[in-house]
Amino acid sequence: MAGGAAALAAAGLGAARTAGAQTAVTPATPAAPAAPGAAKPLPAYVAWKDPATLIQHSGTTIETRRSAFGTSPITPAERLYIRNNLPAPDAAIVADRDAWVVAIEGVKQPRSLSLAELKGLGVETVAMVLQCSGNGRGFFPSKPSGTPWGVGAAGCVMWSGVPLRQVAAALGGVAEGMRFITGTGGEKLPEGVDPKSVIVERSVPMAALADALLAWEMNGAPIALAHGGPLRLVVPGYTGVNSIKYVKRLAFTAQESDARIMSHGYRISPPGAKGDPSQPSVQEMAVKSWINSPAGDGAPLKPGTVQIAGVAFGGVNAVFAVEVSVDGGSTWLPARFVGPDLGRYAWRNFVLEARLSAGSHRLMSRATDSTGQVQPRDRAENAGGYNNNSWADHAVTVVVA
Amino acid sequence: MAGGAAALAAAGLGAARTAGAQTAVTPATPAAPAAPGAAKPLPAYVAWKDPATLIQHSGTTIETRRSAFGTSPITPAERLYIRNNLPAPDAAIVADRDAWVVAIEGVKQPRSLSLAELKGLGVETVAMVLQCSGNGRGFFPSKPSGTPWGVGAAGCVMWSGVPLRQVAAALGGVAEGMRFITGTGGEKLPEGVDPKSVIVERSVPMAALADALLAWEMNGAPIALAHGGPLRLVVPGYTGVNSIKYVKRLAFTAQESDARIMSHGYRISPPGAKGDPSQPSVQEMAVKSWINSPAGDGAPLKPGTVQIAGVAFGGVNAVFAVEVSVDGGSTWLPARFVGPDLGRYAWRNFVLEARLSAGSHRLMSRATDSTGQVQPRDRAENAGGYNNNSWADHAVTVVVA
Repeated sequence: MAGGAAALAAAGLGAARTAGAQTAVTPATPAAPAAPGAAKPLPAYVAWKDPATLIQHSGTTIETRRSAFGTSPITPAERLYIRNNLPAPDAAIVADRDAWVVAIEGVKQPRSLSLAELKGLGVETVAMVLQCSGNGRGFFPSKPSGTPWGVGAAGCVMWSGVPLRQVAAALGGVAEGMRFITGTGGEKLPEGVDPKSVIVERSVPMAALADALLAWEMNGAPIALAHGGPLRLVVPGYTGVNSIKYVKRLAFTAQESDARIMSHGYRISPPGAKGDPSQPSVQEMAVKSWINSPAGDGAPLKPGTVQIAGVAFGGVNAVFAVEVSVDGGSTWLPARFVGPDLGRYAWRNFVLEARLSAGSHRLMSRATDSTGQVQPRDRAENAGGYNNNSWADHAVTVVVA
Repeated sequence: MAGGAAALAAAGLGAARTAGAQTAVTPATPAAPAAPGAAKPLPAYVAWKDPATLIQHSGTTIETRRSAFGTSPITPAERLYIRNNLPAPDAAIVADRDAWVVAIEGVKQPRSLSLAELKGLGVETVAMVLQCSGNGRGFFPSKPSGTPWGVGAAGCVMWSGVPLRQVAAALGGVAEGMRFITGTGGEKLPEGVDPKSVIVERSVPMAALADALLAWEMNGAPIALAHGGPLRLVVPGYTGVNSIKYVKRLAFTAQESDARIMSHGYRISPPGAKGDPSQPSVQEMAVKSWINSPAGDGAPLKPGTVQIAGVAFGGVNAVFAVEVSVDGGSTWLPARFVGPDLGRYAWRNFVLEARLSAGSHRLMSRATDSTGQVQPRDRAENAGGYNNNSWADHAVTVVVA
């Protein structure tokens, strides 16, 4: 037994216990404090989610806690973030899913298709990171308006649906001169305002046709209303706003939509400026990673070995490698990917085993994508607080005592 | 529009509708009839599951409906089957998960480890088919005793935990002469009976050490009590009974357990015979596949193109290919895998696009594993109704009208 205790001490474990003593229950680390938002009930349309794993910013902006990301690449639906630009439509639209109709325009033979008809045209499944354009906004010292997301306006989910390119092909192909894919959401618009000022309609470049889906399933189940069911345009590699929920119109267009959410919203504007159509749109995601465990929000760790775990993704490209620093970014060690590789658009879980001595440690991760792009140290300042992939901003501080 | 209608008619779709007519909602196929068991409430320990997707055989034997498997390879927890040999322990055991203790025996330095300590030793994530030994028993004409499962005592889930080989290494390695991995479940045993007659204790060959985990996470969340949380021994490639829930003792042993569930239960016994230790144990899974959509339980299909979708896996080996027959097994067509490949122990979704004319059709699938083993036409008869991987038994009948 002494040898066993020594081996475990070397592995950073606590005092040896008697083998077989099932009742000798003494946790090596105290239980984490109760999640501060656990008591706040969730709105009815997301009442099926797990409140203890979520941070509620508002009824339509709900974030996954850093500590609630596990070491599997798929984020369970009940832990996935919510960010809806308008309240979700009435649940009646998911009562007869196959009856949902989407108008397909900008093809040689435009027409409307029901979800039942779409299901006959083909099926593909893609795993991808779904991330709000403003994820990480909370780390901007400039405090841009909008939800101050930490790391959790993101998840990795699997979508099933028909490839959009197959839908276009079934309708004679994309019409001449079209350069964008424009999706329109089926939200009920508030009355008394110009529809263009509120409608959720976004355009992405035609290049997205290669992998976009009209999806009816998320993580193996029909898409929940809260996540855009019964039918969602899914654009892998692009920020979440470009994946249009309850999509009622899918048009190949010569120009970008003139809806305000496209023309002025989600633009990379200089600090202090307002959004306008001359500025770059928030679309393709860039290489990013962060550490989820230890999350830095629990009790002090015991000295010894710790498994530092997180997620990394390449955005429009595959992620290639991840490094971890336990000294504030001075030196970096290669982390190990764990679990299956779900493809180019998914994130991968990584782990680095490290020994941490007593004191405070600043831990961070830095990913590299398949094109050699390295996650930057600094955020790119912009008025909207978009696209934050700074490794310094996403670091966690852990105390070992 | 005429051209569009013609193109869609060729793709098997119904009459054309006016493009943009969002309100012209006429489903191409009638909604499926309400799931017959949907009204029956689930027992409290699985009240978080989705009853409409499940068939309740009893409070501890609950099956996923064939129609509830989607086209993503991961089965959501709320749709995953339940098969517990004894009622689940009190939920108090998941109140402080890190305090759970497992005794590790048959190593050079045996001792007990808390879950918190296990988490410091390493982490890996594996996707695998979890399948009850008796899945498909309902297709045996001999009506063996036990739950008459159809296809749904199976799912594909991701587990995270520490590789068992790393635990053994941390305790000095496996002791000399050990040939089995023996796990003991933490169920509370009924009083007044010989514990050996009811305890859930199973042994698997040492070869399973290569990939076995002591897992604390399923599908990205802490393992639910109903699925063996806080800690489960997970043995990829083996039937579910070998993955011990609430594992309280993990022993490397020279002999198989003498618990009745091992010595007499789960044996491949000749029809009419009782189980005994001389018969082969139900352990490694074999190559298998089945069709989930169309499930054969809905309204008649319309003539035209249908996406025939299902799942296929190789058991202890990877799945290599799947064929589909739409003529009762006379001729076979290669199906296409869809979605990411989650590795050797996972299942893969497959799809075959087919045109079905009016009439009744018998659809089936046949998988081949990476070693060339082909899923057989016929089940291997045995008294317990175990290991049914007959492609004929798993066929579905669909009516096109």
